[in-house]
Amino acid sequence: MRKILPEVPKAVYSATMRELRAGIVVIGNEILSGKTVDSNSAFLARELRQLGVTLKRITVIPDELDIIEDTVRDFHRTLDLVFTSGGVGPTHDDITIEGVARALGRRVIIHPLLEAKIHEYLNGKTPNAAHLKMAEVPEGAELLSDERIRFPTIKAENIYILPGIPEILQQKFLALKERFAVDPYHLKVIYTNEIESVIAVHLNDTLREYPELLLGSYPKIGNSEYRVKLTLESKDKDYVERAFAHLMELLPTGCVVKIEG
Amino acid sequence: MRKILPEVPKAVYSATMRELRAGIVVIGNEILSGKTVDSNSAFLARELRQLGVTLKRITVIPDELDIIEDTVRDFHRTLDLVFTSGGVGPTHDDITIEGVARALGRRVIIHPLLEAKIHEYLNGKTPNAAHLKMAEVPEGAELLSDERIRFPTIKAENIYILPGIPEILQQKFLALKERFAVDPYHLKVIYTNEIESVIAVHLNDTLREYPELLLGSYPKIGNSEYRVKLTLESKDKDYVERAFAHLMELLPTGCVVKIEG
Repeated sequence: MRKILPEVPKAVYSATMRELRAGIVVIGNEILSGKTVDSNSAFLARELRQLGVTLKRITVIPDELDIIEDTVRDFHRTLDLVFTSGGVGPTHDDITIEGVARALGRRVIIHPLLEAKIHEYLNGKTPNAAHLKMAEVPEGAELLSDERIRFPTIKAENIYILPGIPEILQQKFLALKERFAVDPYHLKVIYTNEIESVIAVHLNDTLREYPELLLGSYPKIGNSEYRVKLTLESKDKDYVERAFAHLMELLPTGCVVKIEG
Repeated sequence: MRKILPEVPKAVYSATMRELRAGIVVIGNEILSGKTVDSNSAFLARELRQLGVTLKRITVIPDELDIIEDTVRDFHRTLDLVFTSGGVGPTHDDITIEGVARALGRRVIIHPLLEAKIHEYLNGKTPNAAHLKMAEVPEGAELLSDERIRFPTIKAENIYILPGIPEILQQKFLALKERFAVDPYHLKVIYTNEIESVIAVHLNDTLREYPELLLGSYPKIGNSEYRVKLTLESKDKDYVERAFAHLMELLPTGCVVKIEG
């Protein structure tokens, strides 16, 4: 006689849904020395999440060739997509191209299409060494052109080389983003006026039942509206809905002040 | 006969000045998923620079034990100071203490002083498992108490464990900061209305003469006041002053719109 198995609330995304794992390498002494606040990684984090891409790591490193090389190589080998930000330009501290080339074991070459763009930009004047530095790419790199951007984006294997200037980084990413879209994340948010040490047991219970749920608990101090924000996420919409219903059942009566998603 | 050697404009800090190399490990899915903007690393970067501490790396990683362990171990071994931000608290996703303990090859224990603090806070009520989680430390950790903070800061070897909530992280860091002060950096800033490809040659010349200068070049777009900001820095005040004078001589007449420092 066949036994009827109990329903196991397992997310299906691990087997059937597409996942892309990404990393961001921010290259810039100005961020490590506290002169500039990095806004590029927060922008990319939001955009990637909306596309369904899973961001696994952000690293901010100095303008030092060995460190760029080692970090980019590690990201290149362990992740599906790598975005670099900063260190591209005509001056001495712009060494990202060389760092990426070394990470991939390639030479740096002057790309004829970029050189032509620079000649066009200079309108007949002879380019100097600083201008020509802007035409450098790791050998074998692809140029991704788009009508929305002035200068093509350089792609070497799974590495997209983006500038540090936020306005240009954003333009370039928005021109690329369609190519990264995968199955989206589904998010529900619960705002409660209860404290974490009271809620913790219910979160643990929910995770026992829904072990693949992405569940976050974020206390906020000095906020009159709520004390803890709970985020429930999965690429499986039904799974997150069921986990949400389960947790809502467990939470103390009256402690939920707002729901989103 | 002794030859008179030419004066070599070498910075003296490498031999005589104290350097402390620091890293920040930010632990938080909420930042990687774009739900929260990390302000802690920018705060710490500014504060550390003011103290003369050299920040070498910032890394944002997910709430995953193996990744926390590996990252913290790497930072612990290669840097003088490590600050972690996030992942401390009473819920399932608060696993920084265990990650740090594993990185150091230690057990997690309940610290009697923290347990007493929790009993005091609960005013006679029996602590639950979530409360007791807040008393966990890597075995052998120090507790750093200060009248300006409510709960002591946990220090394990060269690792300072800070919370993710910005207000508390800031309080805790400000209560600690005096212990990190070393020889300060000296900074001069030049704002120019010239473009980088014209200035680059002068920056390269300055670096040939002053190879230990920390020299940054940061273009800004859409700014009516200036086009490129140049930062000159060293722990040797005289060295940066001389490098500054050298560069000012080289820059095209009239291109400097503002000076700071």
